[in-house]
Amino acid sequence: MTVIDNGVNVQALLDAREALAGAPDAAQFTWKATSRWENGVHSQTTIKNFFGLGEEQTHRTEAVFDADHPEIFAATDIGITPIEYLLVGLASCLTAGIASVAQNRGIQLRSVESTVEGSHDVRGILGVDSDVRNGFNDVKVTFNIDADASRQEIEALVAQSQKRSAVFDAITNPTEVTVEVA
Amino acid sequence: MTVIDNGVNVQALLDAREALAGAPDAAQFTWKATSRWENGVHSQTTIKNFFGLGEEQTHRTEAVFDADHPEIFAATDIGITPIEYLLVGLASCLTAGIASVAQNRGIQLRSVESTVEGSHDVRGILGVDSDVRNGFNDVKVTFNIDADASRQEIEALVAQSQKRSAVFDAITNPTEVTVEVA
Repeated sequence: MTVIDNGVNVQALLDAREALAGAPDAAQFTWKATSRWENGVHSQTTIKNFFGLGEEQTHRTEAVFDADHPEIFAATDIGITPIEYLLVGLASCLTAGIASVAQNRGIQLRSVESTVEGSHDVRGILGVDSDVRNGFNDVKVTFNIDADASRQEIEALVAQSQKRSAVFDAITNPTEVTVEVA
Repeated sequence: MTVIDNGVNVQALLDAREALAGAPDAAQFTWKATSRWENGVHSQTTIKNFFGLGEEQTHRTEAVFDADHPEIFAATDIGITPIEYLLVGLASCLTAGIASVAQNRGIQLRSVESTVEGSHDVRGILGVDSDVRNGFNDVKVTFNIDADASRQEIEALVAQSQKRSAVFDAITNPTEVTVEVA
C-alpha cells in the first residue's frame, strides 16, 4: 500500500472543522497588516500578528513587503505593484487548496505549477475614462499538475479548490471595505 | 515658496493620462505571476514580467513570495496566509494613491501609516457551514496621516485615493476569474 503524503495534515483540518462547528466564536479570525509610506508610491507593509481561536496569534516570523510602481510610470520599482499582490494571494490560495483536497482524496501530487494573468486597463486608475474600472478586467489562472490521477480527477481537484478558496471568493465577489482617517 | 515633494512625478502621470487617452491599446496591461507548490500548503510565487505599453516589461528585480498557513492549522507557517496578501495589496495601493493625490494638490506629506484588518469566518473554507462565505466578511483600513493640511483636506485625499484605487475596486467589486488545467 502506497502512503499518500502531500505534507498536509488533513486529519487536523477535519478535527478543526468538527471543533469549530460547535464553537463559531473561535472561528472568527482577523488578519492584520500595518503599512508605512516610504516615498513616492513606495510603501512597506508588515504582517506579524492575527487574531483567531479567541486570542492573539503570531506568525513564526514577521514578513515585510515592498510595493511600488514600475519605472514606466516614473516610479522607483522597489517592489511589485499593489495589484500584483492579489495574484500572489490567488495563486497560493488555489495551490494550497489543491494540496489539501488531493491529500483528502488520496491523490499523490508530484508537482503543481500555475501561471496567473490579470488583465488591467490602466485608463481607469489614470482617470482617462470613467467608464473603465480601476481593477482587473478579468483574471486567468492556468494549472500544470503532475499527480497520480486521471485528468478528470485533477480537474475535480482544481474545481474543489476554487469552491473553498478564500481568495477566489474575495476576488470574484464583492467585500465591503471601510477606509477611515484616525 | 515651499516646494512640495512627496517623491511622485505627477507631471509624468498627467502626461501618461493624455498619451493613453489617444492610445487605448497601450493602456492594456497584463500583470503576471507564476507559482509553484512546495509541500503541504506552502507555495512560492514569483513576479518578474508584465505586459504594458504594447510590449513585454520587466521589473527591476524578480520578487519571490512564500505563502503557507499558520501552525494553528497544523501547517508550517513558512509564509503569510494567501488571504493576507490581499491586505498588503490594499494598504499599499491606497497609500500610493494618497501620495500621488497629495502631490497633485500641493500637500506635503510627512508620514502616512495605516492598519488594515480583514475579518474572516473560517467556517467557510473549512466547510463547516455553506452559508458562511470563504473570503473576508469585511475589511477595515485606518489611516494616520501627518501632513501640511487640514483634517478635511486629509480626508479628501483618502477619499480620492479610494476612488482611483485598483485594489480597492478589485476587492469591493466582483472580477471574473477563470481557472483551467493546461
